[in-house]
Amino acid sequence: MNYVWLNGKLVPENKAVVSVMDHGFLYGVGVFETLRVYAGHPFLLKDHVDRLSRGLQLLRIRPPLSSHEWAVAIRQLLDANGLRDAYVRISVTGGAVGPGLSVRQFDEPTTVIFARPLPKWPEQMYTEGKTVEVLDIPRQVPGGTESLKSHNYLNSVLARLEMGERFPTHEGLQLSPEGWIAEGIVTNLFFVRDGTIFTPSTDLGILPGVTRRFVLALARQAGLSVEEGRYPLSVLKEADEIFLTNSMQEIVPVRAIPGWFEKGAGPVAAGLLDAYRQWTGRLWSVRELEVASDPYL
Amino acid sequence: MNYVWLNGKLVPENKAVVSVMDHGFLYGVGVFETLRVYAGHPFLLKDHVDRLSRGLQLLRIRPPLSSHEWAVAIRQLLDANGLRDAYVRISVTGGAVGPGLSVRQFDEPTTVIFARPLPKWPEQMYTEGKTVEVLDIPRQVPGGTESLKSHNYLNSVLARLEMGERFPTHEGLQLSPEGWIAEGIVTNLFFVRDGTIFTPSTDLGILPGVTRRFVLALARQAGLSVEEGRYPLSVLKEADEIFLTNSMQEIVPVRAIPGWFEKGAGPVAAGLLDAYRQWTGRLWSVRELEVASDPYL
Repeated sequence: MNYVWLNGKLVPENKAVVSVMDHGFLYGVGVFETLRVYAGHPFLLKDHVDRLSRGLQLLRIRPPLSSHEWAVAIRQLLDANGLRDAYVRISVTGGAVGPGLSVRQFDEPTTVIFARPLPKWPEQMYTEGKTVEVLDIPRQVPGGTESLKSHNYLNSVLARLEMGERFPTHEGLQLSPEGWIAEGIVTNLFFVRDGTIFTPSTDLGILPGVTRRFVLALARQAGLSVEEGRYPLSVLKEADEIFLTNSMQEIVPVRAIPGWFEKGAGPVAAGLLDAYRQWTGRLWSVRELEVASDPYL
Repeated sequence: MNYVWLNGKLVPENKAVVSVMDHGFLYGVGVFETLRVYAGHPFLLKDHVDRLSRGLQLLRIRPPLSSHEWAVAIRQLLDANGLRDAYVRISVTGGAVGPGLSVRQFDEPTTVIFARPLPKWPEQMYTEGKTVEVLDIPRQVPGGTESLKSHNYLNSVLARLEMGERFPTHEGLQLSPEGWIAEGIVTNLFFVRDGTIFTPSTDLGILPGVTRRFVLALARQAGLSVEEGRYPLSVLKEADEIFLTNSMQEIVPVRAIPGWFEKGAGPVAAGLLDAYRQWTGRLWSVRELEVASDPYL
């Protein structure tokens, strides 16, 4: 029996339901986070909750839980499901306020948390890397204003449909409407050239990835220079290595991007992954690492 | 007691629920239509079902009902709720296939129909018109590929939030990202100049409104010339009149667009509204009018 945490209660998954009038269902009014739990520790939970909170504020949904309460709820859920290492998704939607667009604050949001065992990724994914395909469908900022990890996830759904069965073994790369490198369907992209790490700037409207930020902090701590900006696909031809990040898969090298890159996995991603895994059991926020590594403190 | 039609059954609204794993809830994978029922007749139902079907095909959701079955289901729902004139929303989502983006066809979709009594619009809305405000938030094509009336409705939600309490008494006008006149939050826009009717082209990614198409057909039948294209806001300064259309409110004149238009309601919209209301009790598709008015048949 798998349990879901729903509005403060643990309910069997087949009884975890929401009203058809929930604005999360009617209109996609809601935000979510996916995070990875390592031996019971929800890694970088505070950063995920902070991003969720910014989304809730934009959508005028009352935040249902504090950071501490999220941690307690996740713990309850994991215990109920007998999980120590897990994929966790937390989401908050507008709740059941009936049909029609609402201009008032959503005071009775729907809160859902569920957990799954982690998939078993093949070790070659980390040693040899993934192939990445450049997609036709451009990256879209859901809603049109600023980047939100929202229940309006159709752009990623359509991107995955473009990939067909090759996803998730392969990842898809989306460009901005102007043609700049934006992000993968479920990952942020980095490339390395002459010892500097480059990644698309969040002002492109890409998701400000929690893992992206953590990896940038790790790179700075390792003394690497880091640059965020707008890059055309052609720069990848001169990259020494390329890698992808997300909360579940951590850091995955790119084996090839047909037509643009074919050098395979490299040492920078491998080094960063080693550093990454030294922190997974304990940090609550990237800020802890940033402060620890600040040479002026 | 209000009833909802849910997957073939009439259920009390407070028991009409879907799984938290429904992809309509998790990701906004679903499409919907709103239509108006006149004395038991669901006006232009076939056109709404056709547009819904195109969306289902794009999202790879199996169509749950034929046009005839939709008509029967709507009739059952209206009878259960004692309604003869109503707002009806039909929607189909991906169903509960669990977390993670799906690349297979959704074979067990969730189908929901609900009905509400029509709001009572003040008569001045039709005689004097609505004020329209130009919004900052650009119109976005949900998903980024082609226009869909989908559960990814955040662009309209955010547009409505920009309007605050002035909506729905006032309507908001959104521009395309390039600055062309696109559409209202819940309406299509038309303007009249020297006897010709102009409206933004659907190649801007705006919603191909069923009512928009019907009004264009009515205009042609009345011998008016019609042009679809890309127009900057400045053309509205030379408009003789402007009006809005949607399935519920039919044809509503624009009183003013501050800074751009202030001439108030005009005769073309009034004439088209008279013509519109001659057909509301009987047509199933705009095509019936188009065929009837084709001078070559």
